[in-house]
Amino acid sequence: MNTLDEQTLRYIPKYYRIRQDLLEKIRDGRFPAGSSIPSETELCAIYGVSRGTIRRALDELDRSGLIERAPGRSTTVCTPKIPLLASGFRSDIANKGLRPGTEVLSITAAEPPWDVARLLGIPGGRTVDIIERVISANDTPLVVETVFIRSLKEAIVESEVKSNSLLTLIPVKSRAILSRAVETYEPIILAAEDATLLGCSQGDLAIRDQAVLYDGDGCPLYVSIAIVRGDRAKIVTEATFSVI
Amino acid sequence: MNTLDEQTLRYIPKYYRIRQDLLEKIRDGRFPAGSSIPSETELCAIYGVSRGTIRRALDELDRSGLIERAPGRSTTVCTPKIPLLASGFRSDIANKGLRPGTEVLSITAAEPPWDVARLLGIPGGRTVDIIERVISANDTPLVVETVFIRSLKEAIVESEVKSNSLLTLIPVKSRAILSRAVETYEPIILAAEDATLLGCSQGDLAIRDQAVLYDGDGCPLYVSIAIVRGDRAKIVTEATFSVI
Repeated sequence: MNTLDEQTLRYIPKYYRIRQDLLEKIRDGRFPAGSSIPSETELCAIYGVSRGTIRRALDELDRSGLIERAPGRSTTVCTPKIPLLASGFRSDIANKGLRPGTEVLSITAAEPPWDVARLLGIPGGRTVDIIERVISANDTPLVVETVFIRSLKEAIVESEVKSNSLLTLIPVKSRAILSRAVETYEPIILAAEDATLLGCSQGDLAIRDQAVLYDGDGCPLYVSIAIVRGDRAKIVTEATFSVI
Repeated sequence: MNTLDEQTLRYIPKYYRIRQDLLEKIRDGRFPAGSSIPSETELCAIYGVSRGTIRRALDELDRSGLIERAPGRSTTVCTPKIPLLASGFRSDIANKGLRPGTEVLSITAAEPPWDVARLLGIPGGRTVDIIERVISANDTPLVVETVFIRSLKEAIVESEVKSNSLLTLIPVKSRAILSRAVETYEPIILAAEDATLLGCSQGDLAIRDQAVLYDGDGCPLYVSIAIVRGDRAKIVTEATFSVI
């Protein structure tokens, strides 16, 4: 199972060694994504341990999103999550060699929700430009995004949203420069409408990623509310530290 | 309710206007955190609408984490979530004028899980230094963190963990410089053990924040796995764009 000597192995709980062994088999492709792993009864026989020990090992793999268990069905290995760089989902999908897709749901002008108006620093009742879209990778929908733009100097049309990053498009169309982004991450349960758009079940886990993008003068340029499905994607950020 | 004229109001769905009105009362303190809001029956009478309309407004507030509904009990206004800056939870709590607390659960040397060993770039079976702690703000536990340190030149003791940021402490004790951090966010359901440490219920929502911190040569210095409770905290990141 690994390179530890007998003495050390004695101190590692059995369930943990089984978890590690299964994890290794998933990572190296001996149990590929979508395949079934042996049943609890079979695992008890393979490892020579009790059902409780096997369950504990499987519980941990389940919580990490590596396997999916369902009553009366065999346990299957999950497809690995696609890491999405927060600084631009769409271009990051392309950089990974996957095919990014954008389905534009609507481009409208309307009053934003109260909390978004506050983030944009505009009075209640003022309309803003709103873009709703679904971002996918290799035809798998991953993100439902609603973008509220404070002040466009030139209209944005659907074909532009489909073929550009909004991080580039919105500053150009607002005649502004992007200077700063503040993003807030919260775990949520998918609402029915978003679940349908993402091909998920209502009640599945997701992250609500709220971004406020500021222009060169520190004024809010736009707010993005992205719902990122938790079963097929995870959000990645990178930061560099300046040497003191 | 707001400054829109009658004409515009006619185009805004009723449930949405009620949601906005309740939201405003929560934000401006007319419905303070912990207080009960009127029952569905009372709200139907107040706004002169059907129960379905009230339910839809409450559903949206519930999903945003602003109210908490429970069968047979009155609906209460939630305590606002504490925004935690990903670049350093502990110092960010202090910067907000809250009292940060660190409970050190353990400081040990052990073999890290398989996936952490891979992130640290070490062979299986090698032991690393592991710190487990709970970070709190004003005595409310918010984060359970496990830190795996690749190579300490000098031991870290409990009192040092309690009074320093690990972002400062670990580089000093490893005789290294921090250059880069890569963080990955995933929504999870709290496991029993973490729920107990955070004073939450098993099954509550949380974000799993995995950070890999690199030294000046681009080698992994340590890995942090932070479980951030979703009901009382949210994660915030800031990025700046360099002008081209």
